[in-house]
Amino acid sequence: MNDSTSSPVSLDDLVVVIPAGGVGSRLWPLSQPSRPKFLLDLLGTGSTLIQDTVARLQALADDVYIVTGARHADAVAGQVPQLPGDRIVGEPSPRDSMAAIALAAALIEQRRGPAVMGSFAADHVITESAAFAEAVRTAVAAARTGKVVTIGITPTEPSSAFGYIRQAGALEGVDGAFEVAEFTEKPDAETAARMLADGGYVWNAGMFVVGTDVLLGHLAHQLPSLEAGVREIAAAWDTDARDEVLARVWPTLTKIAIDHAIAEPVAAAGGVAVVPASLGWHDIGDFDSLASMLTPDAQGVVAVGRDHGVGLVGAEKALVVGGDRPVVIVGVDDAVVVQTQEALLVTTRAQSQRVKDAAASLEAE
Amino acid sequence: MNDSTSSPVSLDDLVVVIPAGGVGSRLWPLSQPSRPKFLLDLLGTGSTLIQDTVARLQALADDVYIVTGARHADAVAGQVPQLPGDRIVGEPSPRDSMAAIALAAALIEQRRGPAVMGSFAADHVITESAAFAEAVRTAVAAARTGKVVTIGITPTEPSSAFGYIRQAGALEGVDGAFEVAEFTEKPDAETAARMLADGGYVWNAGMFVVGTDVLLGHLAHQLPSLEAGVREIAAAWDTDARDEVLARVWPTLTKIAIDHAIAEPVAAAGGVAVVPASLGWHDIGDFDSLASMLTPDAQGVVAVGRDHGVGLVGAEKALVVGGDRPVVIVGVDDAVVVQTQEALLVTTRAQSQRVKDAAASLEAE
Repeated sequence: MNDSTSSPVSLDDLVVVIPAGGVGSRLWPLSQPSRPKFLLDLLGTGSTLIQDTVARLQALADDVYIVTGARHADAVAGQVPQLPGDRIVGEPSPRDSMAAIALAAALIEQRRGPAVMGSFAADHVITESAAFAEAVRTAVAAARTGKVVTIGITPTEPSSAFGYIRQAGALEGVDGAFEVAEFTEKPDAETAARMLADGGYVWNAGMFVVGTDVLLGHLAHQLPSLEAGVREIAAAWDTDARDEVLARVWPTLTKIAIDHAIAEPVAAAGGVAVVPASLGWHDIGDFDSLASMLTPDAQGVVAVGRDHGVGLVGAEKALVVGGDRPVVIVGVDDAVVVQTQEALLVTTRAQSQRVKDAAASLEAE
Repeated sequence: MNDSTSSPVSLDDLVVVIPAGGVGSRLWPLSQPSRPKFLLDLLGTGSTLIQDTVARLQALADDVYIVTGARHADAVAGQVPQLPGDRIVGEPSPRDSMAAIALAAALIEQRRGPAVMGSFAADHVITESAAFAEAVRTAVAAARTGKVVTIGITPTEPSSAFGYIRQAGALEGVDGAFEVAEFTEKPDAETAARMLADGGYVWNAGMFVVGTDVLLGHLAHQLPSLEAGVREIAAAWDTDARDEVLARVWPTLTKIAIDHAIAEPVAAAGGVAVVPASLGWHDIGDFDSLASMLTPDAQGVVAVGRDHGVGLVGAEKALVVGGDRPVVIVGVDDAVVVQTQEALLVTTRAQSQRVKDAAASLEAE
């Protein structure tokens, strides 16, 4: 286990799991309950976030699972037709990330026995593919030591939008991996600035690499009924009993994020490692972060999915998404104008966080 | 001439002229060069500004003329089919209000001999019809004394958007009419406040009532070539020579507003009277004034020409015009969102004046 830098780490037993949940309500009206963020071509590149995610991971692993809401399973299958149908796991209802990932782990063990599993969000952007592949190899090597391994993002700014992971000493035998001292909640701006200055902190991007047996072992210890539940569902998955067992057991599973269920308690016990990496990673949470991902034209306008002009009068910069006619913005700096078939949104980059309440404002009205 | 309050003034010889020019570029994209403000149902009442204007004036006079750009003559005729075709006078090109009104005066004299002419803008709003009718009667009585008479609007606020008329003593023999001391340019805010406090000032709303012979007489004195030009055109209007004379003479006419050509110099010589009136008069110049004309709903939204909801999140008040889907405004107070087939405008009420440069911003871009 100490040769990770002298010869390439084999990824033969790596199975990838992509939990695809979360609407992305701050990206309304692009995102909708019926059209969550991961199904969107958010950057206007011609491929959706989940398509990019699958392509990035199929370059590393032959076996890729997607766990998503049953209502989105057909749309997902349509976007990634190269995945076998039995690799798309439909959840009857959302029960947070631990149930989704644990079900995938149990299903993988059921179908092929224990493997190293890598879990990666469906809707993140990673621009440095080679660095990502290298980080995954290091994480797989670290996972083979029995650790729960997370790939942490080297901070590029004092963000208070992400949780942080505090590194401890180097992980013995795996160059590039470190022990984890603790996971921390999203900090305030001042704390984030101090963390960045101190060093030794990385962003928690929700990327976990871990043996399925290790993961389910921790789960059996922390949340035994959840572990038993996903094992029961997995045993029935490829049989005629699937629907009955799902209907009976799934609603009983504890609704909890993997961070709280596994990462935090296991880190406190010394069982988590981290691979810090610079990946050009972005979690495009709102229109402000979307705008910052894209290159404006000479007048400061970022236009996505449009064929018509944008005019600015007494206004600096703008993000304009969709719409089938020219747009002129007068006297509003950093305006955000987003049009879909369903609705028109008008806001500013500074106010983007509040878009999460937009859909509700129409229902209330 | 001193019986105007004891018996109704006859309006038998009143002929109305409605100069319909001006795009209303601060109301873009509702207004367009091909669809000027007077052709719009700006208040969402089901009738356009020129339709309301014609209806208001046909209640007072049998004979109504509209002078408009030749390119708009068909649209005008379509909106007011009750007017005989020969009452719609098409200008080959815009040459400002003096040429339009003088041509109408000359055409009226040519067709029926001298009359009292009332000239009223096509795109103003007047909500107090009875008060307006009364003011016109008083103005006609005053015009019969040989004065150029203007109906001035009693100010309701210290506006710096309008020119002002300073009243002098009562006009002898006509109750409700006053001599005019002078016309003043649009004042700054401080001057406007002082004028309102001092009293004796009314807004110049561009309403003139005057004998055609009086008007053309003043014009012959002030701008003889303009007077001769419109007489020559009027003589040819109802003949086969119209096109030839128009093509030759119209481009030579001095481009000047009636205020500068007649009202100001004649007032200085003591020849202008004013009838102050409270008419519920509004010149809807921009989206700020449009919004102030309309009643908001419980959440402060004014919606015009829409069938879909408007949501506000962290935002106070809004004007939303047109558009075929729900609109949500997040974190922008007093937003103005206007959608037509041609374009989408996003601004705020405070920035409405700058909309005049909106169309140019698209051409530049």
